Amino acid sequence: MEIQIGRGKTARRAYGIDEIALVPGTRTLDPSLADTRWRIGGIEREIPIIASAMDGVVDVRMAVLLSQLGAMGVLNLEGIQTRYADPEPILDRIASVGKDEFVPLMQELYAQPIEPDLIERRIQEIKSQGGIAAVSATPAGATKYGSIVAKAGADLFFVQATVVSTAHLSPESVTPLDLAEFCRQMPIPVILGNCVTYEVALSLMKVGAAGILVGIGPGAACTSRGVLGVGIPQATAVADCAAARDDYYRETGNYIPVIADGGLITGGDICKCIACGADGVMIGSPFARAKEAPGRGFHWGMATPSPVLPRGTRIRVGTTGTVEQILRGPAGLDDGTHNLLGALKTSMGTLGAKDIKEMQQVEVAIAPSLLTEGKLYQKAQQLGMGK
Amino acid sequence: MEIQIGRGKTARRAYGIDEIALVPGTRTLDPSLADTRWRIGGIEREIPIIASAMDGVVDVRMAVLLSQLGAMGVLNLEGIQTRYADPEPILDRIASVGKDEFVPLMQELYAQPIEPDLIERRIQEIKSQGGIAAVSATPAGATKYGSIVAKAGADLFFVQATVVSTAHLSPESVTPLDLAEFCRQMPIPVILGNCVTYEVALSLMKVGAAGILVGIGPGAACTSRGVLGVGIPQATAVADCAAARDDYYRETGNYIPVIADGGLITGGDICKCIACGADGVMIGSPFARAKEAPGRGFHWGMATPSPVLPRGTRIRVGTTGTVEQILRGPAGLDDGTHNLLGALKTSMGTLGAKDIKEMQQVEVAIAPSLLTEGKLYQKAQQLGMGK
Amino acid sequence: MEIQIGRGKTARRAYGIDEIALVPGTRTLDPSLADTRWRIGGIEREIPIIASAMDGVVDVRMAVLLSQLGAMGVLNLEGIQTRYADPEPILDRIASVGKDEFVPLMQELYAQPIEPDLIERRIQEIKSQGGIAAVSATPAGATKYGSIVAKAGADLFFVQATVVSTAHLSPESVTPLDLAEFCRQMPIPVILGNCVTYEVALSLMKVGAAGILVGIGPGAACTSRGVLGVGIPQATAVADCAAARDDYYRETGNYIPVIADGGLITGGDICKCIACGADGVMIGSPFARAKEAPGRGFHWGMATPSPVLPRGTRIRVGTTGTVEQILRGPAGLDDGTHNLLGALKTSMGTLGAKDIKEMQQVEVAIAPSLLTEGKLYQKAQQLGMGK
Amino acid sequence: MEIQIGRGKTARRAYGIDEIALVPGTRTLDPSLADTRWRIGGIEREIPIIASAMDGVVDVRMAVLLSQLGAMGVLNLEGIQTRYADPEPILDRIASVGKDEFVPLMQELYAQPIEPDLIERRIQEIKSQGGIAAVSATPAGATKYGSIVAKAGADLFFVQATVVSTAHLSPESVTPLDLAEFCRQMPIPVILGNCVTYEVALSLMKVGAAGILVGIGPGAACTSRGVLGVGIPQATAVADCAAARDDYYRETGNYIPVIADGGLITGGDICKCIACGADGVMIGSPFARAKEAPGRGFHWGMATPSPVLPRGTRIRVGTTGTVEQILRGPAGLDDGTHNLLGALKTSMGTLGAKDIKEMQQVEVAIAPSLLTEGKLYQKAQQLGMGK
Repeated sequence: MEIQIGRGKTARRAYGIDEIALVPGTRTLDPSLADTRWRIGGIEREIPIIASAMDGVVDVRMAVLLSQLGAMGVLNLEGIQTRYADPEPILDRIASVGKDEFVPLMQELYAQPIEPDLIERRIQEIKSQGGIAAVSATPAGATKYGSIVAKAGADLFFVQATVVSTAHLSPESVTPLDLAEFCRQMPIPVILGNCVTYEVALSLMKVGAAGILVGIGPGAACTSRGVLGVGIPQATAVADCAAARDDYYRETGNYIPVIADGGLITGGDICKCIACGADGVMIGSPFARAKEAPGRGFHWGMATPSPVLPRGTRIRVGTTGTVEQILRGPAGLDDGTHNLLGALKTSMGTLGAKDIKEMQQVEVAIAPSLLTEGKLYQKAQQLGMGK
Repeated sequence: MEIQIGRGKTARRAYGIDEIALVPGTRTLDPSLADTRWRIGGIEREIPIIASAMDGVVDVRMAVLLSQLGAMGVLNLEGIQTRYADPEPILDRIASVGKDEFVPLMQELYAQPIEPDLIERRIQEIKSQGGIAAVSATPAGATKYGSIVAKAGADLFFVQATVVSTAHLSPESVTPLDLAEFCRQMPIPVILGNCVTYEVALSLMKVGAAGILVGIGPGAACTSRGVLGVGIPQATAVADCAAARDDYYRETGNYIPVIADGGLITGGDICKCIACGADGVMIGSPFARAKEAPGRGFHWGMATPSPVLPRGTRIRVGTTGTVEQILRGPAGLDDGTHNLLGALKTSMGTLGAKDIKEMQQVEVAIAPSLLTEGKLYQKAQQLGMGK
Repeated sequence: MEIQIGRGKTARRAYGIDEIALVPGTRTLDPSLADTRWRIGGIEREIPIIASAMDGVVDVRMAVLLSQLGAMGVLNLEGIQTRYADPEPILDRIASVGKDEFVPLMQELYAQPIEPDLIERRIQEIKSQGGIAAVSATPAGATKYGSIVAKAGADLFFVQATVVSTAHLSPESVTPLDLAEFCRQMPIPVILGNCVTYEVALSLMKVGAAGILVGIGPGAACTSRGVLGVGIPQATAVADCAAARDDYYRETGNYIPVIADGGLITGGDICKCIACGADGVMIGSPFARAKEAPGRGFHWGMATPSPVLPRGTRIRVGTTGTVEQILRGPAGLDDGTHNLLGALKTSMGTLGAKDIKEMQQVEVAIAPSLLTEGKLYQKAQQLGMGK
Repeated sequence: MEIQIGRGKTARRAYGIDEIALVPGTRTLDPSLADTRWRIGGIEREIPIIASAMDGVVDVRMAVLLSQLGAMGVLNLEGIQTRYADPEPILDRIASVGKDEFVPLMQELYAQPIEPDLIERRIQEIKSQGGIAAVSATPAGATKYGSIVAKAGADLFFVQATVVSTAHLSPESVTPLDLAEFCRQMPIPVILGNCVTYEVALSLMKVGAAGILVGIGPGAACTSRGVLGVGIPQATAVADCAAARDDYYRETGNYIPVIADGGLITGGDICKCIACGADGVMIGSPFARAKEAPGRGFHWGMATPSPVLPRGTRIRVGTTGTVEQILRGPAGLDDGTHNLLGALKTSMGTLGAKDIKEMQQVEVAIAPSLLTEGKLYQKAQQLGMGK
């Protein structure tokens, strides 16, 4: 298993979802028989897909819509939704600047402080329209706004950092968030992340996480790997953390769902993550392409506005259909980004998996879809490159 | 053999035809001595190449032409040929719409119901011109139109789904196609597919298949891997299914040919599939480039018109020569897409293989033709990219 | 060593020169001390580089120039030089047609028969100007023109086919070339190729080859791999054939040089082939870029004019300097295509290799220079792609 | 460990930094607690980053600025700074010529001899402004100018060649630099490089190096691998040389820092080199993009001006910010090329590494970021390729 990189340094080979493919078994299933339901924090959903807590992906309207469609969206409590009473002109500005002005603009917009009142207001707006109020904050934000979130009646609280651990060293002047204490005190389920290893996944479950987010570095709008060198390919990360979930369940009887987060674009990506052991997925860019998405055809990372070390770039993803089309079809595109539920059901049918639990057990092959010489020509033609 | 992706998830490495190359042995052969004949469903053909059952590839005229040239074409019974008495204006429309209008147009065109009379008419048109009437339908279509096909005098019936199995679960309201029963009742040979594993290949042979189609996910116009995550590289799939054929033959004395289907573009691709164990190949895009092809320079997948989950994209392949040039030469192009028979004979000569059986035994090397830095420059120049 | 592709099909991993790099040892050397001399067929040359027998690379003038510069060029006796008394207007036409007219033009030009008188005349033109008259023909051409070549006073005869073997099956009507007999009867040394395996290399030495050419499929202007599926990456092919040379030498005391042929573009490529065991290299495209090259900035394969199955494409390589600059410098380019001798001497110095024999022993690492995401951006900028 | 390339030739797999990723452990750290200090030649610096001795990267002003910011820059004593009293118009010319005129211009500019007076003057200019005077020369230059450098009061002397060894063979007419003797006689610390193997790294430490530079072939502006075939991917080279450092320290008690040099562009690259065992890094292109850089938005290699074998190409890197932004932020770009110190501290925090020594021990995974089919589309869009 351990490969020697050089004298005194060994490493393990980790696999990404682009390197695997799902292998049909001896049974097939009518897609209508595929049961995609899952539960997180006591809430059952038909579709195991969560929209990422990103400013270009989820606002109040998207959170409500996604809930109605059988999925869920998470509202970022430290983004523009809680810094500006009216975020619309702000979002217009973000969509209108050029590539070079983007980072400075984001840094300027995030200099505006978060207004606790707006946190409450956003949660209530979602609840009043019948949506599931799933919200997110960084560990620092969780310390500050945890009680407001609880009081405002949120359903789920995602505490998310690039990398989270149960053993965080802080300067003496700062009191770090005690995750165990925080989970105990919060009256609502707390989902923790992100992590990529068995050990950290297990430790997050032990401190009381109602779900864990898995994924560091793989996202389309995430540049952690380039900036920090940190990351682990998703197939390996998900399989490792799913093993932690299964071991934890065996010991305690508590089943803590594992959510693959980052780098997932197509229905096939989602299917592969579940086949590696995920219970659900969190996706950003596919929803950023919805007509109703706040990003106006753009998608950007959560670490972008960092005043000192911005990470996460802005990508023009375009607008390709309604959120309903993207989630439940009918698909108007043939590239795997529309009707994600249909893709999951069809894949489960093809693979003979009756439910998510069976889908987690399907056979996987290592089959890298690398760019070969022959494919470059083909792709170049499709992309309209060359003459 | 099993590689660990993560804790609790192992996978096998599967190989694609882009990752292998054929290794000359100690003998060479004059290409004129290479015998390429094969048999399927009691029909002998000089050329082990079948044109795919795709609307842009095979119509009545192509089926007849291919038969005359020593090969064979399969007519899709659930495409436009059986929905429209005169498919020509329909094909004109498909070729004329823009990229974004394509999927909606296909969905609209396929809303038109299949006319059983046209099934009969197409088969008779092929037969009356001396062609081999090989036709295809999905399992659902086979249930509905099987008896018409038999009565109309077809020679071979291809029952094809993205993935087929002998154990298919359906909703109670639906009676699924019993493949064993169907093969028994049909008075003509039934070819089944697609499959990618030893187990399923063997089970299809056991229920009475006269041939099996191997390949899921690898096609140029196929997006199954992106949409569903499902697929297995062709070299491994073909070798596994060929092993099933050999084992089945050893046990029963019945030799059921294995047809590699999907992702094959050049003569080299065809040679490599046979070297991995295939008896014949089914190809789409190379024939879509024929002057006589119904696609008018375009090629698209069979799952494209799905009203809920379209898969398979439309590719502009262009028109490069007559179907005779593509199949038997003389080649007017040097990229391996013309004179496929000549390429196969020359490859067999180079490798010292006297017939298909010997070609299945030639030595193979793993030799990925990946895109390296150096090659990008070269390729970019050839493609006319850059300045 | 053997990897399973699928049930019943195993393969060996073969490596290309793009996948390896040379590792410095504990000694370095002033490049002026590197001795690059080698011998083939009794002729000693300072530079172990031979220009390929291609119409765009070697004519009488190039053969003479290369001889004077310490290297050697091989004249193709079945190309335009022996079909046309004045090849200049022919070469002008080849350089002036568009991409689509190229293959038909080549087929037309090669319909003109070979004139035996011109074979004699070209050899004498080279000899009279003091050049080494190294010429090449296919096995069929060798049968026909062998005696003329010998009589005309050629120095070396290269008998070259895509793949050559000592056991070639022909139709009864054709008497195949008996390589052993041919080598025995020819009064001049015969170099045979191409081959890629230990067994065939050994058999060619046993029939009397004075040198063997190694390489199938890897050339820039060669499309054998696409058309035929046949090929083997150069690092492995060269190492295997070099082992045959060493074993043959141990047994017989005859040292038969191994010449790596195909796919070599830069000085680094040449160095890597020698490090894998080659005694010399044969290169085409680097010399096609010479001001004096007959190709006028174009380069094309020898199988291109095949009337039935053309292989080998035309590439615009441009003109970058004189043949002296390319071979001995000074370099006016920094990409490894100028001053190939200087590059070889500098590499030998860097690696501490005093002569070709020591260079064959230097340490090699597997270090694929694959195109990564990061590099695409860099390369795209260099290529002027994108905006 | 040894892989067979072919009969009689084995090789070891070497890994590049693009093939690895850093894996978070069970602890995280506030970035403010990450201690990045290191020492080289008795000098302590806050930031383990050295600017390369390249004409487009370091002049007197950059050396002073980098010193003030906690890092260091090395002045090339054999470049234009010591050939021209006023290098500004020379740098203007280099930035203004076209791609094809670049190599000849460099060859012309370097024909101008080095003026020993200017060596002294540049060192004094740096010292008088409070900068660290780190300078570099080739072994030949070190022989000639060593005493001047010492007398002029330089702080550190980098003796750098593409590949350096302690056993160098020279023609009899030339007295090669005896590295042991040179290190003994120089009154200031001597850093030696470049090397890539355990054995050479150890031998350089034994002759008295105060630091060693690791890296052959991987740089952006370096074409050694193409021209010479020589090179070794950085992750393996750094790990091997770091093992030599550790063994040497164990035996002698002397800790000789290992500096990764070449091919590093982003903060992530720097973090990965340290995680493989480096104490510091030397980078060129990231600083060539500074407003204050002498290259005016261009970057080129040190071997470019070679009159006979130029290596190292000129790349337009553009100007993206001040050297302070690049080194200490705040970042105005989100691609990992600004605020390199912040990236290192954040990465160390993410990985729970309190100091460079702990950072050298973090877990590494093999996780190639290869270009897949899917990513090409994404990247092509970002690059503005296609339509």
